[in-house]
Amino acid sequence: MKKKKLNIGLIGFGFMGRTHSNAYRKVTNFFDIPYEPVLQTICGLEEDKSKAFADRWGYKTWTTDWHKVVEDKNVDVIDICVPNNVHAEIAIAAAKAGKAILCEKPLALNSEQAKTMVDAVEKAGVANMVSFNYRRVPAVTLAKKLIDEGRLGRIFHYRANFLQDWTISTKVPQGGIATWRLDVKAAGSGVTGDLLAHCIDTAMWHNGPINNVCAMTETFVKERMNVDTGKVEPVGIDDACTFFCKFDNGSLGNFESTRYARGHKALYTFEINGENASIAWDLHDLHRLSYFDHRDDSIVRGWRSIHVTDGDMPYMDKWWVPGLQIGYEHTFVHQAADFLQGMAEGKPASPTFREALATQQVCDAVLKSARNKSWEKVPR
Amino acid sequence: MKKKKLNIGLIGFGFMGRTHSNAYRKVTNFFDIPYEPVLQTICGLEEDKSKAFADRWGYKTWTTDWHKVVEDKNVDVIDICVPNNVHAEIAIAAAKAGKAILCEKPLALNSEQAKTMVDAVEKAGVANMVSFNYRRVPAVTLAKKLIDEGRLGRIFHYRANFLQDWTISTKVPQGGIATWRLDVKAAGSGVTGDLLAHCIDTAMWHNGPINNVCAMTETFVKERMNVDTGKVEPVGIDDACTFFCKFDNGSLGNFESTRYARGHKALYTFEINGENASIAWDLHDLHRLSYFDHRDDSIVRGWRSIHVTDGDMPYMDKWWVPGLQIGYEHTFVHQAADFLQGMAEGKPASPTFREALATQQVCDAVLKSARNKSWEKVPR
Amino acid sequence: MKKKKLNIGLIGFGFMGRTHSNAYRKVTNFFDIPYEPVLQTICGLEEDKSKAFADRWGYKTWTTDWHKVVEDKNVDVIDICVPNNVHAEIAIAAAKAGKAILCEKPLALNSEQAKTMVDAVEKAGVANMVSFNYRRVPAVTLAKKLIDEGRLGRIFHYRANFLQDWTISTKVPQGGIATWRLDVKAAGSGVTGDLLAHCIDTAMWHNGPINNVCAMTETFVKERMNVDTGKVEPVGIDDACTFFCKFDNGSLGNFESTRYARGHKALYTFEINGENASIAWDLHDLHRLSYFDHRDDSIVRGWRSIHVTDGDMPYMDKWWVPGLQIGYEHTFVHQAADFLQGMAEGKPASPTFREALATQQVCDAVLKSARNKSWEKVPR
Amino acid sequence: MKKKKLNIGLIGFGFMGRTHSNAYRKVTNFFDIPYEPVLQTICGLEEDKSKAFADRWGYKTWTTDWHKVVEDKNVDVIDICVPNNVHAEIAIAAAKAGKAILCEKPLALNSEQAKTMVDAVEKAGVANMVSFNYRRVPAVTLAKKLIDEGRLGRIFHYRANFLQDWTISTKVPQGGIATWRLDVKAAGSGVTGDLLAHCIDTAMWHNGPINNVCAMTETFVKERMNVDTGKVEPVGIDDACTFFCKFDNGSLGNFESTRYARGHKALYTFEINGENASIAWDLHDLHRLSYFDHRDDSIVRGWRSIHVTDGDMPYMDKWWVPGLQIGYEHTFVHQAADFLQGMAEGKPASPTFREALATQQVCDAVLKSARNKSWEKVPR
Repeated sequence: MKKKKLNIGLIGFGFMGRTHSNAYRKVTNFFDIPYEPVLQTICGLEEDKSKAFADRWGYKTWTTDWHKVVEDKNVDVIDICVPNNVHAEIAIAAAKAGKAILCEKPLALNSEQAKTMVDAVEKAGVANMVSFNYRRVPAVTLAKKLIDEGRLGRIFHYRANFLQDWTISTKVPQGGIATWRLDVKAAGSGVTGDLLAHCIDTAMWHNGPINNVCAMTETFVKERMNVDTGKVEPVGIDDACTFFCKFDNGSLGNFESTRYARGHKALYTFEINGENASIAWDLHDLHRLSYFDHRDDSIVRGWRSIHVTDGDMPYMDKWWVPGLQIGYEHTFVHQAADFLQGMAEGKPASPTFREALATQQVCDAVLKSARNKSWEKVPR
Repeated sequence: MKKKKLNIGLIGFGFMGRTHSNAYRKVTNFFDIPYEPVLQTICGLEEDKSKAFADRWGYKTWTTDWHKVVEDKNVDVIDICVPNNVHAEIAIAAAKAGKAILCEKPLALNSEQAKTMVDAVEKAGVANMVSFNYRRVPAVTLAKKLIDEGRLGRIFHYRANFLQDWTISTKVPQGGIATWRLDVKAAGSGVTGDLLAHCIDTAMWHNGPINNVCAMTETFVKERMNVDTGKVEPVGIDDACTFFCKFDNGSLGNFESTRYARGHKALYTFEINGENASIAWDLHDLHRLSYFDHRDDSIVRGWRSIHVTDGDMPYMDKWWVPGLQIGYEHTFVHQAADFLQGMAEGKPASPTFREALATQQVCDAVLKSARNKSWEKVPR
Repeated sequence: MKKKKLNIGLIGFGFMGRTHSNAYRKVTNFFDIPYEPVLQTICGLEEDKSKAFADRWGYKTWTTDWHKVVEDKNVDVIDICVPNNVHAEIAIAAAKAGKAILCEKPLALNSEQAKTMVDAVEKAGVANMVSFNYRRVPAVTLAKKLIDEGRLGRIFHYRANFLQDWTISTKVPQGGIATWRLDVKAAGSGVTGDLLAHCIDTAMWHNGPINNVCAMTETFVKERMNVDTGKVEPVGIDDACTFFCKFDNGSLGNFESTRYARGHKALYTFEINGENASIAWDLHDLHRLSYFDHRDDSIVRGWRSIHVTDGDMPYMDKWWVPGLQIGYEHTFVHQAADFLQGMAEGKPASPTFREALATQQVCDAVLKSARNKSWEKVPR
Repeated sequence: MKKKKLNIGLIGFGFMGRTHSNAYRKVTNFFDIPYEPVLQTICGLEEDKSKAFADRWGYKTWTTDWHKVVEDKNVDVIDICVPNNVHAEIAIAAAKAGKAILCEKPLALNSEQAKTMVDAVEKAGVANMVSFNYRRVPAVTLAKKLIDEGRLGRIFHYRANFLQDWTISTKVPQGGIATWRLDVKAAGSGVTGDLLAHCIDTAMWHNGPINNVCAMTETFVKERMNVDTGKVEPVGIDDACTFFCKFDNGSLGNFESTRYARGHKALYTFEINGENASIAWDLHDLHRLSYFDHRDDSIVRGWRSIHVTDGDMPYMDKWWVPGLQIGYEHTFVHQAADFLQGMAEGKPASPTFREALATQQVCDAVLKSARNKSWEKVPR
């Protein structure tokens, strides 16, 4: 079967630019999808680096002006891998230009901005997806499957943490290319938008909508050098955020994220407690899922450590043989496969911009709650 | 050396009555303390069971009237192992009678009641201690030592959970001897007083005072049969409680307890994140402490699983040889050793009634916060 | 019910003397057995220490001459906790005197000596048991139960290790009270008799007889100071021993023990692989059993970590509540309970001297194989 | 910098054909090496599948005759991914044709055959390497680094297992494309050549030469359907193999492999015990290394679980950010990088054919020992 070529215009050559490029290069080696993605053009702020990136990954062309990518007739898909404060502008222009769009998370700086993006893609009728890649860790997808099969019964608790430790030193600056996530102007928020957004996206996918939240945030280091201005400036982001909440299904949520948890690099964890069974997972051993089933014979009942590598596990029939684990980067390959397959079938791939807006609304309510020291209702 | 005999009057022959009796019987086999505790008298509500308990454990006498124990000239120590709503009355009477007192946790139904108990023991000048036994798990004591040595540096986060699953079934009743913990009249509260009180006691011992709290509680099962009345009655306790808080040292706390976490029997866990090092522990593997030290050489840096069994670990020189673990019951032996040693030296053994009052005040603020849906300041 | 008193004469006040004394003191507090053991007399080599031990544990009398204990009309049970080279003499004398006997492992210095002991107790018709205490870790007993229920199906592999690290330093001496285990005259062998004997006892209990063995031993430190002679002398024991073997049921065994495995204090581990299920366990987390059942639904199939603390687990209805672990010392309490219960019923408690002889025969074949560098058949 | 193109001719499109193709496609995206590998031609037995494989992976041409690949002037590197019994013929022809050669493991059916291959490549002076990919798991490479730095001190023990469970069913056939590993004619041996060869390669890399071995093998299922002949035929391979051995440095080895260990898919594990420190690793969590250092302060001494993802870990500066794990396939990318870098520099990449011959010699001695039931010296 001859595959249809689909030309990718990637904007942003940072960490996410690499994960997305790798995904496009690998996806058809492993997945049977009707499209063949072609690395058409890469756009970054710096000429030298854009060119080098194009060479390394095999992009046909490069530019430093994202408008050119959006307007390029040869480009079918706009992939947005730039800081959060530029998402909206690019996405809206891409929608107007009729391009399919894959956008990094969080969708926008805030819900208002996110809404304009949803409106734009829906009006234009273009394929759209937000890169909440952790949904597509096979173990996380398996958790969804187990929940949907009803194995857990009534859900009582959903807990999720995302713990890092990379900003403990006061010498870490804000702003610039490497540390824009610490600059509130570029990032919109700190751990809430960067890390909790992942936890919230997965949680609502697993467990349904969140309706009310109550949060506490903290900024441990109050001032940092700003790479862009060269001055020591106040830090505007949340270094840490904890919130509890209620889901529509009556279960309770407890979420926490920080970049001050010494010893944890990217420890995204979740645990779901149901009437009959519970599930737990963590990103540091992403290829495993923990599962406890109360219906087991009592003398052999215990937490099961499921090595999610067999061919009957989500996505795993595409990879190697039982026992051999995949890693972080594969989540982006799965995402690319699902996005492209959705385009081929004319079906949206989840999470769409609209679904990501709901996550943004929870984030906004969390930040508002922390400011107001009050419970906040999540708008719908 | 001839040891001085110290006669114990134990009130309550339930689960805690067993752990305390076992502790008194073992303590001088392993610890060198100047006192020899003697199991003098046991008091319970039912004659047959009191007598059987006395036979099994070697108590010299038994009674069903606690006033007789308190008034007994042959009794030196009153050990209170009854439901929470009876603590105050017995303790105050015992103080007036000049007895040393070891009281099960939580100290009282609420802070007001607890204060009257503190006043009574301090006025009487009697030795007093509350049985927050988990402090004396060697790994938990080791955590205290590591913190006090300054190994962690500035503390950013303290997290603690206490997860159980024994009340998920709606058929579990409230009231009676086995399930008084579900009856708000006997227990005062649910998981907050029963489980979070442990977490709070240890947390403040490790990390100093808590000054403000914000909490959410839930009662998943709204009605249960009351064993005492034979009627289905509303459930007045909190089935689950989550709260976040601030400590005086600027660190953030996140605490959760529930009896609806399928798969966890008594999963008390804590984690402390400091600038230089972090510590984690859980009760299901109580003989281990996890420790991460950022100052290790980077290529061999990782979480260390410390098997707390060597002779240089807290309390462990008294027991067996390296590699051989002790269990739950030993925390009570350590507690008895420290209490009796404190009496011998005329020094209070921690936590005293006054220290336990501070824990009660946090619990009260937590419950108030959940009712009011607001942050609450912890009174001092 | 009035219990019959049973007077214990304990010979040897070292590490094992403590574990056995503790067991006798605790057993009737937790187990309902018709006998009440009484700590009648303790016998050790040194006067001062024997007296101090008697004081600490409540023995009525003490002596430094074991013959007096054996001949004492007031003694019902002789409990032998002395170095291996004295087991036979005492046990045979005790048998002749008509005493019940509990003997520490390994039964003897070698099979020949062990046979004379078996003959003596069988001729005398006295109750006899050897203290292979690890069988009575609840998780290890649970493994036996799962095997006997047929859950594993045909067995393919049995693997066991016992790893320690306490003799790595060349400064550790041999001989004397604390280090007689390094002196071949007192111990008979090194890790084979001390550690592998445990593994072999449990393995044959779990998996049936071993018929052929092939072994390698090593003595890493060739000379050590002998505390008894004050001279540096050749080391006669095996520091490490590895052997593989065949069981009568067609499965293969792989056993290893060493005192040179840095990082392991008492890491006794075993794993059993059957057609349908597998089991694994280790002594450093003795309260857990790992279990894998291939018949589970494939998407939730994984190793289960069973927290062996519920009341339906072997021995655990006698202790605390679910989630609260017991430790090393409890294996001796279980052993005492089973031994005394067996005496009450006139039924042998396993392992008897005869069963321990079979273990000794495997040990002897292992040592012979290592000397001869050949496969050796295990005599029956 | 313009990279020199290097044309790859891959023979065999099975599981290994995929891992190697993926490696060539990815290597220059992540590693800075002077060569750009080009997927020139793929050769397989079946036309349809060869063509489909070429399409999927982007090979320019395909063939079913390996001689054409070897003779192709456009091919620079011959990559051999076929069953073991065809390695020698192809490799020798490729050497004669002056091609660089990467050959899957084990090198040959036996040492004699392997020697002819070593002679051929050394005579031709062509680059040559054998694909013992597990050396290049970052954690395994880190272990090598820690040993070479002398952190362990004198080594006492090296233990390695490779446990699988995929041939327990008697319905698994032998022969054919999917199950040639069970047919002795194609594979040469069972677990010894397939799995223990990996363990031995890594062990000798870590710990130096093995000089004497003593082994036991077993074939649990004696007859299986042969896909090639359509008949039930005797099984000629070893289903399980255990051996112990001595290393030149005086340490002891214990190795075991089986395909009958229910619950383990690809559980390659090793542990090394040194005087000062120990190391352990397993393939089911390949991104972690366990490390114990006795020189740590005693109260914080424990096994460290090192999450091998930071940029200062072997190979990890090429991938993502700390905390994000890579997987199985990356070992082949590392191998390709090292092989091509070696070619560029004119330096052999380890393990060469000659080094792989030493592994083959240990395998042969192991199989001979099992047949003869005797210790065997490893020829050099």
